Amino acid sequence: MNHNVADKAKSLRLNAPLPLDSGRELAPVEIAYETYGELNADKSNAILICHALTGDQYVASTHPVTGKPGWWERMVGPGKPIDTDRFHIICANVIGSCMGSTGPASDGESGAPYAMQFPVITIRDMVRALDVMLGQMGIERLYCVVGGSMGGMQALSLAANFPERVARVLAIATTARHSAQNIAFHEVGRQAIMADPNWQAGDYYNGDTPDSGLAVARMAAHITYLSEEGLTEKFGRRLQDRDAKSFGFDADFQVESYLRYQGSGFTQRFDANSYLYITRAMDYFDLAEEHGGKLGNAFAQSSARFCVVSFDSDWLYPTSESRHIVHALNAAALPVSFVELSAPFGHDSFLLDVPALDRVVEGFLSA
Amino acid sequence: MNHNVADKAKSLRLNAPLPLDSGRELAPVEIAYETYGELNADKSNAILICHALTGDQYVASTHPVTGKPGWWERMVGPGKPIDTDRFHIICANVIGSCMGSTGPASDGESGAPYAMQFPVITIRDMVRALDVMLGQMGIERLYCVVGGSMGGMQALSLAANFPERVARVLAIATTARHSAQNIAFHEVGRQAIMADPNWQAGDYYNGDTPDSGLAVARMAAHITYLSEEGLTEKFGRRLQDRDAKSFGFDADFQVESYLRYQGSGFTQRFDANSYLYITRAMDYFDLAEEHGGKLGNAFAQSSARFCVVSFDSDWLYPTSESRHIVHALNAAALPVSFVELSAPFGHDSFLLDVPALDRVVEGFLSA
Repeated sequence: MNHNVADKAKSLRLNAPLPLDSGRELAPVEIAYETYGELNADKSNAILICHALTGDQYVASTHPVTGKPGWWERMVGPGKPIDTDRFHIICANVIGSCMGSTGPASDGESGAPYAMQFPVITIRDMVRALDVMLGQMGIERLYCVVGGSMGGMQALSLAANFPERVARVLAIATTARHSAQNIAFHEVGRQAIMADPNWQAGDYYNGDTPDSGLAVARMAAHITYLSEEGLTEKFGRRLQDRDAKSFGFDADFQVESYLRYQGSGFTQRFDANSYLYITRAMDYFDLAEEHGGKLGNAFAQSSARFCVVSFDSDWLYPTSESRHIVHALNAAALPVSFVELSAPFGHDSFLLDVPALDRVVEGFLSA
Repeated sequence: MNHNVADKAKSLRLNAPLPLDSGRELAPVEIAYETYGELNADKSNAILICHALTGDQYVASTHPVTGKPGWWERMVGPGKPIDTDRFHIICANVIGSCMGSTGPASDGESGAPYAMQFPVITIRDMVRALDVMLGQMGIERLYCVVGGSMGGMQALSLAANFPERVARVLAIATTARHSAQNIAFHEVGRQAIMADPNWQAGDYYNGDTPDSGLAVARMAAHITYLSEEGLTEKFGRRLQDRDAKSFGFDADFQVESYLRYQGSGFTQRFDANSYLYITRAMDYFDLAEEHGGKLGNAFAQSSARFCVVSFDSDWLYPTSESRHIVHALNAAALPVSFVELSAPFGHDSFLLDVPALDRVVEGFLSA
């Protein structure tokens, strides 16, 4: 990708070095963000949307690299479930990413890109940066923090670690810890990137980028975002632009063609080192472990209302993981509504056309 | 891998060119095999065991490369469920593989290894070779054909396409067609191999082998062989040889270390081009499509008795796929017993310690 594309994004520099879970500090820290809708006078109508692994701040505006619509336009806008006529919506690129916030492609102290000198970060580190950002914006307490997938991890982490900061938490298709299988899939992706000779131990910013490895990583991950039934419905064993099998290694099947397209398209907009760092942060995520091994403890200081949503076809973060979160919230005596929605799209359901999700989101924000 | 290791295996040359589904022919065709137990006078006690994707003929004897025990020693041997005191067991390396049977690493007409000039083969092609082999061995009718995973595909294909050849069919943890998700995972593996610069469009036999790509392919596939619960039980989030996270990209988690070991170990014993060809054969497999689109038709000429076994934790070829096979056998009015066994190991359950499977196999072979 072109690492300069996000230069014109709105950006804020944190006014102090950011302490990290590793014991290191990150400075300076730039946070690129977008906002939608007006902040009211008493700053009580702010909603923070946290993005997923390969997401960004362009939740409801055109992506500057791909030219595609924002990733949650169906949810965010005037009169939509997250209503920009009513709320001030903030979405910031996480640290470690590559759309303007400080990450491995940013210049480090030496003046050259950090590359693998960038510190390993955690979900809590991402959230710590968001907390400072909100402080600098003068937003004491969010009306709500919302996130799907890794965004949901951040939403939970914010409620756990900065309980004063948030009145409502909407956590969708997420988990309070990465499972062995989750870690395994990410490790495959990391090994694919690191096996690409262009990776050069991360120092590729002046040369060819490890697109082949990154594409394989994306392909493997992408399968986990879809359900078996969704893949079968969408592609089945249908052939791509041909009447018969080629008896070769072209993309005979539509699903092969689709995956290759997903893989190569991804390399146009994402930095391979960011993929390494963010997957690592997700794998390290275990909210209970951070709080003495008991998930209920994580929420002991929170006074927020929670809404937890899972999808029946999501095998990446299945309903059992959401139930685990709900039990912990119950143990902490916090108000929580929980729903498992039926949708055929697997983990990606939170991004797609699931009208029931719209109603849940709208209802939770109205109450 | 060293491509000469299997030279001392038992081997048989097919006495005519082998016609292939692609319309091409393969000649000469060498079939490397192992046998266990004595063939009786009327040659009525032969059991053919068909191996899985990365399996081989060393079902109950030491693998010549790894030095490890045969892959199904728990099932095959004196007094074991597939009893070598009673049966003559044959296990042959499939064409396209790399343990002595003709495959992409074999010399083609030019005198150099076929590499990607090897014809694309199908499961039916593999079975066609096995049929000729059995004919040359003088074995008219098998007491039973047995296979798990891709071995089960071969067992079903043999019954469908060479119905006279087999009296009993035992198909374990298998499917009658590869699903979109099955194809997708294989495609990731193929792309990982092809992205390795050592692959050299398949012409690597005189140079460095594409081990990095093959290892990534194996890692991705390996996850699909295990269940989420099995991974959690075996590894959970436990760290590898350390008390705390490294905040680096080493294999902090046991599951990462395990996967890396699986990936690199595999490259010692398997040829990357064979992996491409055999995964392709599996992806092409659709037994119904071969028989006018109706799976029941596939078995119209068979007079065999069938036993179909699935595992409740197998998400690669889930029980629903076995049920699909059973319905087709019912439609063909063939005797079939079907059982879903409970085991925590996912797809790999057929290879592991599942005493209930032993009893099913023993019972079916006794009846």
